[in-house]
Amino acid sequence: MEEAIFRSFEDLQPKEILQGFWAQAIHTPGNTINFINVKAGHSFPLHQHIHHQCAFVLEGEFEMTINGETQVLSPGKFVVIPGNVPHSGRAITDCRLLDIFNPVREDYK
Amino acid sequence: MEEAIFRSFEDLQPKEILQGFWAQAIHTPGNTINFINVKAGHSFPLHQHIHHQCAFVLEGEFEMTINGETQVLSPGKFVVIPGNVPHSGRAITDCRLLDIFNPVREDYK
Repeated sequence: MEEAIFRSFEDLQPKEILQGFWAQAIHTPGNTINFINVKAGHSFPLHQHIHHQCAFVLEGEFEMTINGETQVLSPGKFVVIPGNVPHSGRAITDCRLLDIFNPVREDYK
Repeated sequence: MEEAIFRSFEDLQPKEILQGFWAQAIHTPGNTINFINVKAGHSFPLHQHIHHQCAFVLEGEFEMTINGETQVLSPGKFVVIPGNVPHSGRAITDCRLLDIFNPVREDYK
């Protein structure tokens, strides 16, 4: 089947990938693009993966610890995480996040 | 030189990639992630490229014509454009756009 070019977020079923993290994922041939809504106070534990990741905070404040360094991210900041670098995070406020993974996160399909 | 993990949009020099389109590009090993501010009324002409592209309207309304079909995009909608598919666009209001290209747009470096 030919895939639709014009799409709506309404048609993307949100999936709770971790407690409090509701994700809408778009898988392309090369990437996974993940829009995530998180409620304040929820966190994800230290982990790592082979995928290169860029993470943006579209709304709110989100604290990230990467390779032992901690910073609070807001819409003016972002992170570029090479593959296999350990990272964790915590929502200080309600947040809307954007993660871009390369290659595709097969585990999110 | 090891590249910084924590970064700021303030440190990304905006570049006018087309009249009225001011872009801040992030190049990763696999992708170009392009945040673009456009003033209402500016447009980009029909063109195509080998890169797979996902385009999001983070703020405002942006009209796109892809493969002959025209729709108005707002933050609830997005487009997935395979490589070599012709597309054009026009800012109906002031907009903030996000384009994700795979592979890297060497011409944007």
